[in-house]
Amino acid sequence: MNNLTQMTRLEVIVPARDASAIRELITSAGATGYTSVSGVSGIGHHGQHSGALLFNEYDTLTMLITVLPQGKADELIDAIRELLSTSSGVMFVADTYVSRPEYFQ
Amino acid sequence: MNNLTQMTRLEVIVPARDASAIRELITSAGATGYTSVSGVSGIGHHGQHSGALLFNEYDTLTMLITVLPQGKADELIDAIRELLSTSSGVMFVADTYVSRPEYFQ
Amino acid sequence: MNNLTQMTRLEVIVPARDASAIRELITSAGATGYTSVSGVSGIGHHGQHSGALLFNEYDTLTMLITVLPQGKADELIDAIRELLSTSSGVMFVADTYVSRPEYFQ
Repeated sequence: MNNLTQMTRLEVIVPARDASAIRELITSAGATGYTSVSGVSGIGHHGQHSGALLFNEYDTLTMLITVLPQGKADELIDAIRELLSTSSGVMFVADTYVSRPEYFQ
Repeated sequence: MNNLTQMTRLEVIVPARDASAIRELITSAGATGYTSVSGVSGIGHHGQHSGALLFNEYDTLTMLITVLPQGKADELIDAIRELLSTSSGVMFVADTYVSRPEYFQ
Repeated sequence: MNNLTQMTRLEVIVPARDASAIRELITSAGATGYTSVSGVSGIGHHGQHSGALLFNEYDTLTMLITVLPQGKADELIDAIRELLSTSSGVMFVADTYVSRPEYFQ
């Protein structure tokens, strides 16, 4: 795609109190940066196995976005998956393309 | 992709006053959650058939993000397309991957 | 995908002071609209060739999102790449799908 390099984009939405734990995982996985979006609210996503809402509309949420090479992304995805198995939050993973791959190594 | 499950991610940007109608469509389509991002502004996207701006820079906008299985997404896309045919807003649809697909069923 | 049209989605994260330069490039490239998300912070993405952080956690950032046809996107990607070669910021490019392609022409 237009002389761009494929990377993996992770978007993680968690209660604001849990954002620092996610940021630590992002840094530990070797990501060179992340973006935090505040002013986020949400409802759901409830799991049928728990019957409980993960979020309710009064929670203050943080959306964290990070982009990293596929190899590092796999490790981070596993770490976040593990963390979210015992706390609230959702993770969305997608391909993205960047113009300066050396910034993400 | 790394033991993840493919889902469809919808991102809808509408004037804040129309966000509740979109949220109702999301819930009716069986999505188990959504995220709202406030603090959003924008301009355009104007249509050549109308010659009018959909948004102007003074509008307060809301970005709604929801993720759901392809089958439910198709229904929701049609419903939002219909709603947006008579009101302002844009919808972006993309593939995404999640680690806990049971949360989105 | 469900009667949708493929477009290119650019997400650009820059210090707030540089957002207007990016908006001018977006408009010059023929994009018919964009969305700005404020309330954004971040750290990194540092480049190994510079050894310097692009952002630090005290910067106020703006995330700009625009969607346009592939042909126009290529031109805009090149222009933003050029601008970011001498200033701070990251650009993420991904495919997305829209229901009303005439709005983005």
